[in-house]
Amino acid sequence: MKAAFVDPMGLENLKIVDLPEPQAGPGEVLVAMKAASLNFRDLLAVKGGYGSMQKQEKLIPLSDGAGEIVAVGDRVRGWKVGDRVVGTFFPDWQVGPLRFESVATDLGGRMDGVACEKRVFRQDAIVKLPDHLDYAEGASLPCAAATAWNGLVEQGKAGPGDRVLIQGTGGVSLFALQFAVMAGAEVYAISSSAEKLALMKDLGATHLVNYREDAEWGKAIQKLSKGRGVTHAVEVVGGDQLKQTLRAMSLGGYISLIGVVGGNRSELNLPVFSMGGLRMEGASAGSKASLQKLIDAMAIARVKPVLDRQRFKLADLKAALEYLASGKHIGKVIVDIA
Amino acid sequence: MKAAFVDPMGLENLKIVDLPEPQAGPGEVLVAMKAASLNFRDLLAVKGGYGSMQKQEKLIPLSDGAGEIVAVGDRVRGWKVGDRVVGTFFPDWQVGPLRFESVATDLGGRMDGVACEKRVFRQDAIVKLPDHLDYAEGASLPCAAATAWNGLVEQGKAGPGDRVLIQGTGGVSLFALQFAVMAGAEVYAISSSAEKLALMKDLGATHLVNYREDAEWGKAIQKLSKGRGVTHAVEVVGGDQLKQTLRAMSLGGYISLIGVVGGNRSELNLPVFSMGGLRMEGASAGSKASLQKLIDAMAIARVKPVLDRQRFKLADLKAALEYLASGKHIGKVIVDIA
Amino acid sequence: MKAAFVDPMGLENLKIVDLPEPQAGPGEVLVAMKAASLNFRDLLAVKGGYGSMQKQEKLIPLSDGAGEIVAVGDRVRGWKVGDRVVGTFFPDWQVGPLRFESVATDLGGRMDGVACEKRVFRQDAIVKLPDHLDYAEGASLPCAAATAWNGLVEQGKAGPGDRVLIQGTGGVSLFALQFAVMAGAEVYAISSSAEKLALMKDLGATHLVNYREDAEWGKAIQKLSKGRGVTHAVEVVGGDQLKQTLRAMSLGGYISLIGVVGGNRSELNLPVFSMGGLRMEGASAGSKASLQKLIDAMAIARVKPVLDRQRFKLADLKAALEYLASGKHIGKVIVDIA
Amino acid sequence: MKAAFVDPMGLENLKIVDLPEPQAGPGEVLVAMKAASLNFRDLLAVKGGYGSMQKQEKLIPLSDGAGEIVAVGDRVRGWKVGDRVVGTFFPDWQVGPLRFESVATDLGGRMDGVACEKRVFRQDAIVKLPDHLDYAEGASLPCAAATAWNGLVEQGKAGPGDRVLIQGTGGVSLFALQFAVMAGAEVYAISSSAEKLALMKDLGATHLVNYREDAEWGKAIQKLSKGRGVTHAVEVVGGDQLKQTLRAMSLGGYISLIGVVGGNRSELNLPVFSMGGLRMEGASAGSKASLQKLIDAMAIARVKPVLDRQRFKLADLKAALEYLASGKHIGKVIVDIA
Repeated sequence: MKAAFVDPMGLENLKIVDLPEPQAGPGEVLVAMKAASLNFRDLLAVKGGYGSMQKQEKLIPLSDGAGEIVAVGDRVRGWKVGDRVVGTFFPDWQVGPLRFESVATDLGGRMDGVACEKRVFRQDAIVKLPDHLDYAEGASLPCAAATAWNGLVEQGKAGPGDRVLIQGTGGVSLFALQFAVMAGAEVYAISSSAEKLALMKDLGATHLVNYREDAEWGKAIQKLSKGRGVTHAVEVVGGDQLKQTLRAMSLGGYISLIGVVGGNRSELNLPVFSMGGLRMEGASAGSKASLQKLIDAMAIARVKPVLDRQRFKLADLKAALEYLASGKHIGKVIVDIA
Repeated sequence: MKAAFVDPMGLENLKIVDLPEPQAGPGEVLVAMKAASLNFRDLLAVKGGYGSMQKQEKLIPLSDGAGEIVAVGDRVRGWKVGDRVVGTFFPDWQVGPLRFESVATDLGGRMDGVACEKRVFRQDAIVKLPDHLDYAEGASLPCAAATAWNGLVEQGKAGPGDRVLIQGTGGVSLFALQFAVMAGAEVYAISSSAEKLALMKDLGATHLVNYREDAEWGKAIQKLSKGRGVTHAVEVVGGDQLKQTLRAMSLGGYISLIGVVGGNRSELNLPVFSMGGLRMEGASAGSKASLQKLIDAMAIARVKPVLDRQRFKLADLKAALEYLASGKHIGKVIVDIA
Repeated sequence: MKAAFVDPMGLENLKIVDLPEPQAGPGEVLVAMKAASLNFRDLLAVKGGYGSMQKQEKLIPLSDGAGEIVAVGDRVRGWKVGDRVVGTFFPDWQVGPLRFESVATDLGGRMDGVACEKRVFRQDAIVKLPDHLDYAEGASLPCAAATAWNGLVEQGKAGPGDRVLIQGTGGVSLFALQFAVMAGAEVYAISSSAEKLALMKDLGATHLVNYREDAEWGKAIQKLSKGRGVTHAVEVVGGDQLKQTLRAMSLGGYISLIGVVGGNRSELNLPVFSMGGLRMEGASAGSKASLQKLIDAMAIARVKPVLDRQRFKLADLKAALEYLASGKHIGKVIVDIA
Repeated sequence: MKAAFVDPMGLENLKIVDLPEPQAGPGEVLVAMKAASLNFRDLLAVKGGYGSMQKQEKLIPLSDGAGEIVAVGDRVRGWKVGDRVVGTFFPDWQVGPLRFESVATDLGGRMDGVACEKRVFRQDAIVKLPDHLDYAEGASLPCAAATAWNGLVEQGKAGPGDRVLIQGTGGVSLFALQFAVMAGAEVYAISSSAEKLALMKDLGATHLVNYREDAEWGKAIQKLSKGRGVTHAVEVVGGDQLKQTLRAMSLGGYISLIGVVGGNRSELNLPVFSMGGLRMEGASAGSKASLQKLIDAMAIARVKPVLDRQRFKLADLKAALEYLASGKHIGKVIVDIA
């Protein structure tokens, strides 16, 4: 079977190779991959890892993939050939809070990923796709959507009547926007262009600020919310911008800290945080139970992910990753397989 | 001014009388009432009280009313003549959990209510109406909507991906249905007729059971939910029916116990409750902060209350209460004032 | 090796037999059992199961046992020969909330238990004993202590300043009493004799009611708490007594529903529950993470379980179970093995 | 009556003056102050305010005071002459979460404080002292103890089995240490001297690090906790030290952000926070309900505050504040009045 392979690590070493077809052992299923989606973290992983992440010597990249079960091993219960499934980001995180054991492995990071025609999954490391999502849509969920869900809904408990700040049109942000609307909250959107803000409005944002035109956007958000501030923020920027987020918050507001595209370090004004009774919590892709519930919620609300217009083939994965790096995409970048 | 008055207690003694026009003292506002809505509890109050409720000797009835501010007293901040407002159910419950002090007084119960042309409110015992709600719609909220909100959303934290059981088309149930949909949950509705189920479907329910045709409706709900059961139930029936609710629940499911139209006593199967890890919590109309957030949420989602087609005048309040008692209404029964 | 064995089900068929010594497979450890403790549920299990519990045809009984690791299989990490361990009640419940999958098997119920000289455990189904607990003390924890912990501390979040109602001197109740004191709460104890109340006082209870002398003990608790009522109750009786518990509660109080020695059915006064904003939640033995934390807490506070004075040998397990059935014990009944 | 008075603002302008004795109006009580305690924030207030705090032109300083009721106004319920009481820090914060309205006034800040022989309190802005606390001990609670309680117990829900990091021997830290022990948690203490660490050990800390000897104390805490890290930290330092706190945390750990004696600004390593699933929340003195519960908890556990050995008279308030500024005290600095 065809598979993308990096050996040694480095985007320049990413090649499509022929590998022997894997087989499902006891408790495992074999999935014919149909689509994958790209995350910024895949770029880092291909380049050799990031943060505390264990460096691999070689890797089949990508964490997010969906496909069809084509074989089931012994002792598999609840799955059958033909089932449409998506893999979980952390195979060992089934349920409950973050623990060392649960994040020790992640697809396309500390273990091989989904950029291949066939892949074996443990039967408890996949979730069924709902009818209203096709493979590409399903493949967009395990990392970005799950992180947005985990941060804003599971941990932050955003709900009806809340006011949620969404930053830009990256993968996590657009999902967070959709989840906020789905949960009955009001969305305050900031972005860098009228086009992007128009997309955010289409998805349900009702208060829009172009941060290129208004560097003091935290103040603008306060004004738009009539001095109440937002009850929740999904922070994907970090760096210097965090101080604007703090300014935009209501008393007791909740910041879901997810990404740091604007820089790994922020200077935090502690009295503002402390006297405001603010709350901040780190979020990651979460458990299988969390992914299952997010998929249930999308099925109930008939919500579909936003996919970038440009689609790639597995053979063009390198180009796809370079496209992601360019920042020209809006919505998830999809790689169709087979 | 005209006011409804019961003296001595008893529905037969309800009359329309002329009372001196009240005046707003310091920290108070005078409101020209425009509409009121009826709750089953008003019938009990007019008949002389219920439960631990302190019996009055005479009473201006009704808890739920909306109107326009026509005068403001000294030391009033944040309100002006012309503001459209709705009164809170418990004037002394501003924020936070249930306490003795906060439920010691309630409009149309242990203090005079809103069935009158003008009424003085403490400035912290009213909430502003949003633009999308007229007076009648606003008047429908303080008791039934606030209780449904408090039980299902504030306490029960129903959200996206949850499955919520709604029982029938009473005031609390229809609001709970709307809030469940607003919060991204899936609604399992039971009712006694195809017409009522059709209304519930229009409001967003997707799974319907006619309990007259299926006495074992708990089992039916389990089946419709593919053996998972509902994560939340808004219990307004009680009595013998509670055992069906228990049967309909998922493991760890949450029952918001609100009403008891089916009887004050239930026989509870304790092992089912215990081994299922079920949760049950009593709910009441809640605080002003809770009412404010529910109104925020309705404004965000542009949701309007369901009002019964038949409307009454203040002069016909007695007939209105008898109509409520007949059970023929669907949605809130409104009394227009002035 | 020697093992207790029931075949076919029935206490009268409980015998000590010779079974082949088991061996630790990959990911498993072999434990030389040193002590076991008895729970009422073991009596039911030996008699053929209870509730929805799957009936076995034959069984090594008992869920609660501690011992020393004498061999480790392949791929075992973190355990070595000589480690002192206790088994978890539900081997498949590692962490997180109650789910069908997690309670599908339980030791001495739907799978063989610990009443034997050697037993194989999955490496993730045991917890290390702290230094301050011997084998008998450790063996007392998996069912009764874990259930009390899960109900009162994990779910009920009893803490400093709370007032907790404890009913009698059964296994769950004494642990709950100790955990309440450990958490900084005030204990209101009811029991049937001065002797038992004296023991409860020794363990830290400060308010005592003999319910044989005061059938309206709910009222007595209200009085002792100066009309505030208890914030938490650990309900192990059920039946008719639940109404006294309800009477003893504060507004918004939390009832952890665990046992039903007083009857499987209770008549519930719904308005009292609803208007009081009461909360009730079922509790079971919980996850391995929960047991681990309870053991951490006992180590920090240097708390030891209360063991009954009478001790039994494995050969006398039948007599031990009959002794348990007699109700003459106070604290956990221990069976020493080897 | 004698009162301390600052006019205009500035420590150098603090004088003892004679003021007319105040009188209790309706709903108010007159309290003969017996003792007050000092907080660092009083120094800032006397110097002219801090942060967003509204500057006063003149002020009776100090927030924390206890005394005896000597007169009650009309419409006062539940209080009588002779009652021993302590005032709340925010008179308008009765219950529930932080809101603008609730923190608009604070004693000795935006309104006159307690450094006087007699003071009028609203009847809902005082709490009864328990028998086991004298006036000086009671006077130590409203600011420092309440903030520690609110941060660690109410918001952070520290409980049995948790591991709590306490920084130094300031007022908030020593209370937090006592509350952690009271709640059944294990205390990891850092301080600058063996003497201070010895005091912390006496209060119940079991793991001690001298941060002057080990600048990488975050790592030391990790080691002492066997690589698990602390589940809770009470952050009173801020500045550069916050990075050590982050290093000391367990996955999902909770930081209660209270003080910033080490600097108002911290550089935050966002990926460490995010991937660790860390949580941080600002804390302030909280509501009257929170103070009441903390006092209940101290009464149950018979815990007494740590008071500095040196005691001052009202006439020496200036010297007392200078002593506080010197940092030589350990425990709360008390000013005896009358």
